[in-house]
Amino acid sequence: MQLLKEAIIEKGVVVSESVLKVDSFLNHQISPTLALEMGKEFKQRFINEAITKVITIESSGIAPALTTALELGVEVVFARKKKSLTMTDNVFRANVYSYTKNETNEITISKDFISADDHVLIIDDFLANGQAALGLAEIVKQAGASVVGIGIVIEKSFQTGRQTLMDAGYRVESLARVASLKNNQVSFLEEATVLS
Amino acid sequence: MQLLKEAIIEKGVVVSESVLKVDSFLNHQISPTLALEMGKEFKQRFINEAITKVITIESSGIAPALTTALELGVEVVFARKKKSLTMTDNVFRANVYSYTKNETNEITISKDFISADDHVLIIDDFLANGQAALGLAEIVKQAGASVVGIGIVIEKSFQTGRQTLMDAGYRVESLARVASLKNNQVSFLEEATVLS
Repeated sequence: MQLLKEAIIEKGVVVSESVLKVDSFLNHQISPTLALEMGKEFKQRFINEAITKVITIESSGIAPALTTALELGVEVVFARKKKSLTMTDNVFRANVYSYTKNETNEITISKDFISADDHVLIIDDFLANGQAALGLAEIVKQAGASVVGIGIVIEKSFQTGRQTLMDAGYRVESLARVASLKNNQVSFLEEATVLS
Repeated sequence: MQLLKEAIIEKGVVVSESVLKVDSFLNHQISPTLALEMGKEFKQRFINEAITKVITIESSGIAPALTTALELGVEVVFARKKKSLTMTDNVFRANVYSYTKNETNEITISKDFISADDHVLIIDDFLANGQAALGLAEIVKQAGASVVGIGIVIEKSFQTGRQTLMDAGYRVESLARVASLKNNQVSFLEEATVLS
């Protein structure tokens, strides 16, 4: 996705060889027009699928998941990272280890909002080791629903996430695939050709 | 906002005389079309203001804040509830006590994303005691920027939040004003006439 790559080049900050900070348009400040374009692009990537629901994890996944759900005409559910007081035990649960934050979060989605006949698109902001997406897929499995695919805004292709998710049998579509952050520079992999 | 009131009546769950759960379209599952309508309505309410930025707090504020920012053609920043490892000390901070969760969170916004010449619209999902909105307003003040107003999706008008915010000098616009949750029923206040 060209617009996203340009935003990464212009506004992304390479913090280290493994950390890319995009707080100015995705993870803290959000560009609504760019988020809308992400939604349109995800719709195109999964145009041949009958998606009934989009799920993501709070907080940074919400914007691209919302715009994708808007384009698809379905509802979006964001998994919570810890159980809130007003949520009952009526939830699906999975554990997600974050390498960035060095902590394990339990993520939960209410059983009210995924059912066995759902075809679910998982959306997340970053793909590094694939743990967050796997946790969401685990929840979809618990619901007896099917995972249509996993849509990622920024994939760190030099980490193991994509391979992990593909090994688990999931289709992965990433809007930007970062090949390397070495020498303080962002370089991209070529995007796969999209048949639509 | 009629569409929102209908959603509250049809899908809201009255948990107690003070707690209204709207997990099916706002706080956990989100209706993107309803969120889009909220954005349009907030734009109308503040049509005469020159807004340069929308701010909110993760996570439930993000959807209505994003759609409002989309309508206004500005960027949105969500305050974080705890400092992340990749965020430096370059932040504005405020403490927010949540009566629902019975805990105090530090909310932060990077100094990179609010500047002294910003005219900020604060958006949040619920208004109860006004603590979250006051915390956001405090951050805007620290930045030397001005608060144009506070847009709330659902106001619990039987609690003190609106009065607290008005006493502090802020304009408050709520899309739905809940007068009471007694007897397991939601009743609304009349909405103020909007001059546009």
